[in-house]
Amino acid sequence: MDLQYALELVGTIVFAISGVLAVREREHDMFGAGFTGFITAIGGGTLRDILLDSYPLVWIGDVKFLYAILVGILAAFIFPNFLSRLRKTFFLFDTLGIAFFTVLGVEKALHLGVRPEIAAIMGMFSAVMGGVIRDTLTNEIPILFRKEIYASACLSGAIFYLVLNYFEVPRDINLLVSVALIIAIRLIAMRFKLSLPRLD
Amino acid sequence: MDLQYALELVGTIVFAISGVLAVREREHDMFGAGFTGFITAIGGGTLRDILLDSYPLVWIGDVKFLYAILVGILAAFIFPNFLSRLRKTFFLFDTLGIAFFTVLGVEKALHLGVRPEIAAIMGMFSAVMGGVIRDTLTNEIPILFRKEIYASACLSGAIFYLVLNYFEVPRDINLLVSVALIIAIRLIAMRFKLSLPRLD
Amino acid sequence: MDLQYALELVGTIVFAISGVLAVREREHDMFGAGFTGFITAIGGGTLRDILLDSYPLVWIGDVKFLYAILVGILAAFIFPNFLSRLRKTFFLFDTLGIAFFTVLGVEKALHLGVRPEIAAIMGMFSAVMGGVIRDTLTNEIPILFRKEIYASACLSGAIFYLVLNYFEVPRDINLLVSVALIIAIRLIAMRFKLSLPRLD
Repeated sequence: MDLQYALELVGTIVFAISGVLAVREREHDMFGAGFTGFITAIGGGTLRDILLDSYPLVWIGDVKFLYAILVGILAAFIFPNFLSRLRKTFFLFDTLGIAFFTVLGVEKALHLGVRPEIAAIMGMFSAVMGGVIRDTLTNEIPILFRKEIYASACLSGAIFYLVLNYFEVPRDINLLVSVALIIAIRLIAMRFKLSLPRLD
Repeated sequence: MDLQYALELVGTIVFAISGVLAVREREHDMFGAGFTGFITAIGGGTLRDILLDSYPLVWIGDVKFLYAILVGILAAFIFPNFLSRLRKTFFLFDTLGIAFFTVLGVEKALHLGVRPEIAAIMGMFSAVMGGVIRDTLTNEIPILFRKEIYASACLSGAIFYLVLNYFEVPRDINLLVSVALIIAIRLIAMRFKLSLPRLD
Repeated sequence: MDLQYALELVGTIVFAISGVLAVREREHDMFGAGFTGFITAIGGGTLRDILLDSYPLVWIGDVKFLYAILVGILAAFIFPNFLSRLRKTFFLFDTLGIAFFTVLGVEKALHLGVRPEIAAIMGMFSAVMGGVIRDTLTNEIPILFRKEIYASACLSGAIFYLVLNYFEVPRDINLLVSVALIIAIRLIAMRFKLSLPRLD
């Protein structure tokens, strides 16, 4: 429980850092960059909770998430070069982050009583919609439509979790296995430059 | 009642198909295209229900809508050429869809107890905001700002419905007449290339 | 109380006018321009209230705001040249508007029982997110990311209000001083072309 909470805060910091660094090459001032970090960190969970009518929103009910975001933004301000050089490390962290938030999003949705089909979508939303909102605000083509295997890895992991959950696999094992599956799909897709077919 | 429900599901399928086909020429992979279909189909009603605090959202409370969307996405994946050649037919379906969803949106808003002015806006939102959100996410100028007579046809029909409703015209007749008006405005505008004046 | 309500309505009119005029040079028809005015006027407060689960939304619960928006849109339609020539006056009005809405947004959030950190963000959101949503829909880089000192002036004023509030400065004085601070920051920044440092 405590470990999970700590991981959520760390994941929030990572999302905020990646949001700030995503606009680094662009003409944003520091305020705009910080705002981008904020939106990236809260966007997915906020959308999920609004869709599910789950209030208060996580970052509004628990101010520690706001401070986690501030830590991430400040870190990106103070050590931008250092953190950018960590790109590979960061890719791993980001992958860990979306994997973890996907499964937590699925669990939260199930807990709120929705059907598994909806829970799968909510899990994916939790993980990727922060980045989508960020990209939309900054006039980029959202990552969802660019990256080879990104949201689809999350959706696969979410469905996998729901299947294991249906067969009553213990929660801790299921969490671990599903997170690992998302990470594996994304890393393998990246390594071998796999992508989904285009529509034509 | 049953007929209306069936029409809502069919309308949802049509919106999902049109969402997928809208990004066909672009660089999206199948996942991105499917996601676009999903957003197009749920966007308008979801925004309306969030603004009116009406929960659960339609597609979250009734999973049949989710399956209707899946049917639409799969149809667009499997028969893209066939469906694209049906463009004229599709234009008719889409026009029927926005007309129908406008009036249903007005009715839902009235049912939730808001004033007619608000209900008119909610009717228009139900019909067009799915496309607006889709266009915003995919970095297009939203249809609302491009198309000659589109959202304004919906708004006109919504206001017309509310006027007839005020004079206690029976609901079935009102529904039929208002839907017909929206369709007529759009078809006539299209046929004669009518457009609203620009601002200058 | 009555004065405040009148100011809110005037602020809404100003926001609607500025929304319409913002797309004047572009290819929008009158409906699109009016829609842009509408979104600009309601966007910030609507987002704040959805995030805080405060229903009914202001413009849905009190139809006078809708009519204020209509007045603004019609004024911009009828006197576009006159209003555009007033650009400097307008800049003052807009600055007054965002300053005022920031502080009212902070107060509303506090009233709903959230922590001051959250209230500061909600104040800024009330003032600037209407413009951000407008810019996103019309495919502009949002003002937040372009303008030298804009949202950051609002955030500073919001925090200032919260500090004075903590020291129990009477509300009327606090309102006045905090609004004045936001205006001062923005005018000084504009006059001397001050801007926040970029991230690098």
